Amino acid sequence: MFAIAPATGKANLSAGQLKLLSGKARWIFRVGEAGFPTVPTIAITRAAWEELQAERGRRDTRLRTHWVACLFKLVSKDGTPPLLVVRTSAATHNSGLAPAKLGIAAPAAPEDAVDPARPLAKAIKQAFESYGFFGRGWTGLRHEDDRARQIVLVQAVGHGSVEQFLTRNAMTGQLGPAPLDGTPLPRLPADVHKLIDLLDAKAGRHMACLVSIDGGRVTFLSARPVQASAGAELEAAVDRVERKVWTPQGAVTRVDPSRLALMLHPRLKSPEEATPIARGLGVSPGAASGIITFNPDDAARLRARGKHCILVVNETGPADIEGMKAATGILTARGGMSSHAGVIARITGKPCVAGVRSLSVDAGEMVCRIGDREFRPGDRLTIDGTDGSVYLGTLPLAQPQIGGAIGKLLGWSDASRTVAVRTNVETVESAQTALTFGAEGIGLARSEHMFFSPERMVALRRMILSEDEDQRARALAGLVDYQTGDYSALFSAMKGLPVTVRLFDPPLHEFLPRTDEEIEETAASLGVAVRALRLRLERISEITPMLGHRGVRLAITYPEILQMQMQAVLAGARAASERQAEPVIVEVMVPFVSTATEVAWIRERALGMVENSGLARSDRVRFSFGTMIELPRACLRAGDIAGMVDFISFGTNDLTQTTFGISRDDAPVFLAAYQRKGVYERDPFVTIDEKGVGEMIAIAIARGKAANPDLKIGICGEHAGDPASLQFFAGLGVDYVSCSPYRVPVARLTLAQASA
Amino acid sequence: MFAIAPATGKANLSAGQLKLLSGKARWIFRVGEAGFPTVPTIAITRAAWEELQAERGRRDTRLRTHWVACLFKLVSKDGTPPLLVVRTSAATHNSGLAPAKLGIAAPAAPEDAVDPARPLAKAIKQAFESYGFFGRGWTGLRHEDDRARQIVLVQAVGHGSVEQFLTRNAMTGQLGPAPLDGTPLPRLPADVHKLIDLLDAKAGRHMACLVSIDGGRVTFLSARPVQASAGAELEAAVDRVERKVWTPQGAVTRVDPSRLALMLHPRLKSPEEATPIARGLGVSPGAASGIITFNPDDAARLRARGKHCILVVNETGPADIEGMKAATGILTARGGMSSHAGVIARITGKPCVAGVRSLSVDAGEMVCRIGDREFRPGDRLTIDGTDGSVYLGTLPLAQPQIGGAIGKLLGWSDASRTVAVRTNVETVESAQTALTFGAEGIGLARSEHMFFSPERMVALRRMILSEDEDQRARALAGLVDYQTGDYSALFSAMKGLPVTVRLFDPPLHEFLPRTDEEIEETAASLGVAVRALRLRLERISEITPMLGHRGVRLAITYPEILQMQMQAVLAGARAASERQAEPVIVEVMVPFVSTATEVAWIRERALGMVENSGLARSDRVRFSFGTMIELPRACLRAGDIAGMVDFISFGTNDLTQTTFGISRDDAPVFLAAYQRKGVYERDPFVTIDEKGVGEMIAIAIARGKAANPDLKIGICGEHAGDPASLQFFAGLGVDYVSCSPYRVPVARLTLAQASA
Repeated sequence: MFAIAPATGKANLSAGQLKLLSGKARWIFRVGEAGFPTVPTIAITRAAWEELQAERGRRDTRLRTHWVACLFKLVSKDGTPPLLVVRTSAATHNSGLAPAKLGIAAPAAPEDAVDPARPLAKAIKQAFESYGFFGRGWTGLRHEDDRARQIVLVQAVGHGSVEQFLTRNAMTGQLGPAPLDGTPLPRLPADVHKLIDLLDAKAGRHMACLVSIDGGRVTFLSARPVQASAGAELEAAVDRVERKVWTPQGAVTRVDPSRLALMLHPRLKSPEEATPIARGLGVSPGAASGIITFNPDDAARLRARGKHCILVVNETGPADIEGMKAATGILTARGGMSSHAGVIARITGKPCVAGVRSLSVDAGEMVCRIGDREFRPGDRLTIDGTDGSVYLGTLPLAQPQIGGAIGKLLGWSDASRTVAVRTNVETVESAQTALTFGAEGIGLARSEHMFFSPERMVALRRMILSEDEDQRARALAGLVDYQTGDYSALFSAMKGLPVTVRLFDPPLHEFLPRTDEEIEETAASLGVAVRALRLRLERISEITPMLGHRGVRLAITYPEILQMQMQAVLAGARAASERQAEPVIVEVMVPFVSTATEVAWIRERALGMVENSGLARSDRVRFSFGTMIELPRACLRAGDIAGMVDFISFGTNDLTQTTFGISRDDAPVFLAAYQRKGVYERDPFVTIDEKGVGEMIAIAIARGKAANPDLKIGICGEHAGDPASLQFFAGLGVDYVSCSPYRVPVARLTLAQASA
Repeated sequence: MFAIAPATGKANLSAGQLKLLSGKARWIFRVGEAGFPTVPTIAITRAAWEELQAERGRRDTRLRTHWVACLFKLVSKDGTPPLLVVRTSAATHNSGLAPAKLGIAAPAAPEDAVDPARPLAKAIKQAFESYGFFGRGWTGLRHEDDRARQIVLVQAVGHGSVEQFLTRNAMTGQLGPAPLDGTPLPRLPADVHKLIDLLDAKAGRHMACLVSIDGGRVTFLSARPVQASAGAELEAAVDRVERKVWTPQGAVTRVDPSRLALMLHPRLKSPEEATPIARGLGVSPGAASGIITFNPDDAARLRARGKHCILVVNETGPADIEGMKAATGILTARGGMSSHAGVIARITGKPCVAGVRSLSVDAGEMVCRIGDREFRPGDRLTIDGTDGSVYLGTLPLAQPQIGGAIGKLLGWSDASRTVAVRTNVETVESAQTALTFGAEGIGLARSEHMFFSPERMVALRRMILSEDEDQRARALAGLVDYQTGDYSALFSAMKGLPVTVRLFDPPLHEFLPRTDEEIEETAASLGVAVRALRLRLERISEITPMLGHRGVRLAITYPEILQMQMQAVLAGARAASERQAEPVIVEVMVPFVSTATEVAWIRERALGMVENSGLARSDRVRFSFGTMIELPRACLRAGDIAGMVDFISFGTNDLTQTTFGISRDDAPVFLAAYQRKGVYERDPFVTIDEKGVGEMIAIAIARGKAANPDLKIGICGEHAGDPASLQFFAGLGVDYVSCSPYRVPVARLTLAQASA
């Protein structure tokens, strides 16, 4: 029990008391201490309050005397005891907390100050009770300690009118009084700016401020932080640097990278060329395309399989949050800006169109109607959460631009960052997007993605379905030219930055024709009988393709594939090199190795081809050879592998799958239950599992570096875009990470924080 | 160059010379040294021979003088220079070696003894050349050294008739002269028994012996070991113990456990009740049933999927060996006892019927005919390689019995063994088989195998396809009774030995109906519409079931399954306990865990049920709780897990799959290429990969024991039946291994050798 803003004089808190200042108490003390008129306020901890009550039971009064003396600090020089206000002051907001209790008469006698039947003590008791109890568990003791330190504030009532406002605009981040919760901004005297500057500098966050205004004078009552939009927070951070409240590095340290990710929305490339089939409210910005799903569980399954989907529902509720996170966009028939869908969509950064009146959803029958059109699961829609439009099919999207406040912050962040940030792309268009986001190279070009067009697929299938080496070599010859052009363009687009080409990785199984129609088409294009093709397919098909004939296993069993790929990469490098002044830095990476012998086998052949490639010596010298480490055995044998490679790059997706024995595709079904039951704290496919997968990586780095001190270390799984995982990787001393283009800014900021 | 059996006197070899005695040279020296009449013999190393030739180039004669002196040791007291024989003496037999060159005149002059144009030196040169060159590689230097130590023998020609015989019968192992390669046994003088006793004791193997017989006197010329049948080797080993040539422990150490495995053939249970559809030659004993395949590759794939198959071909060749190893039995249209199929089948212990004249195979059209019946892949046959019969369909087989020589040897082996041997079974019949093989408990009862009957499958599917917890609980209730009876019978069958029940493990996916017919049947039995069932199936089906919703994940997401299983196990234990005097030792094991939290979750519930089970306190005390360790993460976190369990048991199949990232089902396609190209030396699913999977196991044991010194360690993957792997496990200090019933004798012998 102590005054944090006495009616007269300074608070003069001890170090122990300063530590107790959580929640509002902190801001009241800080503002008062800085000399801004602040309503007299005292604080009492639960420990002190409980001791007061115990003393009362013992009919003792020593502590009560001290408490009464404390209450006297609320009395101004004129000596009139004020009416009192009792407030909670929790560190984090909690909707169960008691609201401020106003207009309590000052106790008439010392006994009244501690008697829970009297108004003041009653209000204090209720305030403490509203904190509730923390759950028990491993951290029970710590919680017990925290509980004793909870505080309740007793303030004098402010004179005049009580007003609320924000210190910065919630949408734009601009400094100055701004309306709170949609209520109109009151007229405020000029000296409120002094308070706002003070609080903004002290708190470094958007604050909701409570003041009393009496005769043109502002008295500070209380303040609490509020969550602004990610954009507003970022603008505010940059503004604070420009006002010299923060240093650039201070801004870099304080912006939450996961909030940054929310700002990087795609938008429609040419909205003027498309006609919406419906309109609703744009309640969360950004555009999204995908297949329709009516069920949040299905959204999770689709996402796990790498599919974009639009969750179409009448309205959402708390049970749907996981599904909403999994969906690429959300479309609802009912609700508006403050609907559950809108709120959650904005928090999670998902584009959302709400309240589309022409939409009706029958989830049981798995059908929805927009006007007189009928849609079923698998049909495609595009939504624009910025203006509320809904379009038929998949429209082309443009990627967000980096500029303004984001650009400034990322520029500052690069100054302290020591880990390079690359990107996972394989097309020139994505490469250009990634460059605008600040990517410093390509860390993972998945060569198989280059076959995702119908004519190339036919060529690829011809290769896969070859009965012997000759047939396969002929089929492959047809693929070299395509690939050469692709690689040459990609190398040129990257303008002298390194490009890591991962050799063909996926199970051949994935490229096989499946439906009757595809099988007939393929048989015709290959000139074989449908029955013969079916027999061949039956023999090739795998039970567990994910752990099957893929990665380095393809290159060793069919060396022609390796040869074709290397030929195309090297011819592409030669072409790019002849065309441009910048060097071409090619890194070839072998996927899915489990033994050093596999690496040696590929290395011998690949380096032989480089030697005979006709590339200039300077380009050959720059060529480097490495391997992905994505299997537990490769981690253990990293010492053997390291001697044969220039770099290793961890494929954390596959490494998580094999270390945990969990298929990411199938995990949503039980991971949801696991998180609900507290078996897993986090989804290991989102945030790296430090104690398991992380130890695997640490073992591999230690053994690899011991065998080859020059070994370069990269990370190229999706975890390379997750802030918590990036912090961990930075601690392991990796040289670079490689993530999807959108995640490049997040990685730049997080790694700057990790290096700070 | 030195005499190993001089015409007069003793050989008196130096320690260095003794080391050079490889191949026949060793037996000639040993027999001569023991005083048995032996034809005069000298040996020359390649190093010495090459030095002799180099000296000749330098026109020097120092070494030649020594060589000529050596040759004089072949001359008997009467001084007549004998005709000579030149023989190779390789450590291991090689079909490219030069045959013995007979009747060479002794050199007339010292120059002739080294001149390759003259008969003696020419024969020596040819003999060395026939050794050929070893391949180069990592071990090149060692090979170079070995090459210099190769030796060639020069012998005097024996007088009288030259005869060959075996020291023991190749089929029965009985001591005494026996026919070699089907040639009739010559008449031999009585003192040949002295030679045979001598050689059998010195070599400890079946030996092919070459002697000359002149006037009823036997002179030893040469001997080489021959491979006898596994049964004959075993009988011989036991016979040597009974003759006090070996100690019992000596016999245990010397018998190759993988040869022991070959003797444990199944046989037809009731051959008198079946009529063969064809007869051929029984060229490799034992009976086998399985589906027909015409292609060795398919045999490998089927085996990987746990299917038995009969490889049906016109004849086999060297390219088919892998497929033959994978097949359960082999049936050929052509060939006989000494055909490729027969030889390989006997070596690999596969039942084989060869030369079935009524069989014709058209592998291209994937069809075969036996008489006028037509068979296609998937049809079933049974063959009996003991008498050459071929039967339609799958006939019941009886398991081999342990007795006679095997029984004696295993009895001796148990004396020195320190690691317990359990078995992987779940039926009373298999348990009884395993007990006759000496199993000391059940280390793995796969509870899901108890559902492999049509009526239980319906009940199980009803459970899997339940839409909610209530439905699922009702479906499960119907399963408790079945399981209780099963467990009670199993516990009783094991008569006081421990039984480890693994909780339900497989992906539910595996139990779903697949064909249209099954789906219609299931829909009818569940009383739901076919369309609704298809929708539900679509939602449940998994992409990678092997890493999907299985193992502990089932128990946590559907605690009703755990409850049903524990109820059945405990009720079974109660029933068995009431019926018998022996204690019931139940161990419950949780499969597929990756975190300690999962173990804690199950432990709390399982132990709670044990407390309330109504079991006697003595039985409750004996109850133990453990977990399988079959994922890399579980190995790393074994320290956390160990504190919560009484035992851990390594599932080496799954651990190999996840550590290597290789699906065993799909591996044959590329593993064959990998072994051909020398990328893998061994199939990691047959012999444990010590450097990867082995390190994982070692890490887990070290961390587990550090956290819980009383932790019991088991191994229950298929590697627990492989001799090389068992040696490795014994070195890690495991407490028990658990393998399939047939493999129990192999494990008993191997672990006795490992403890010796």
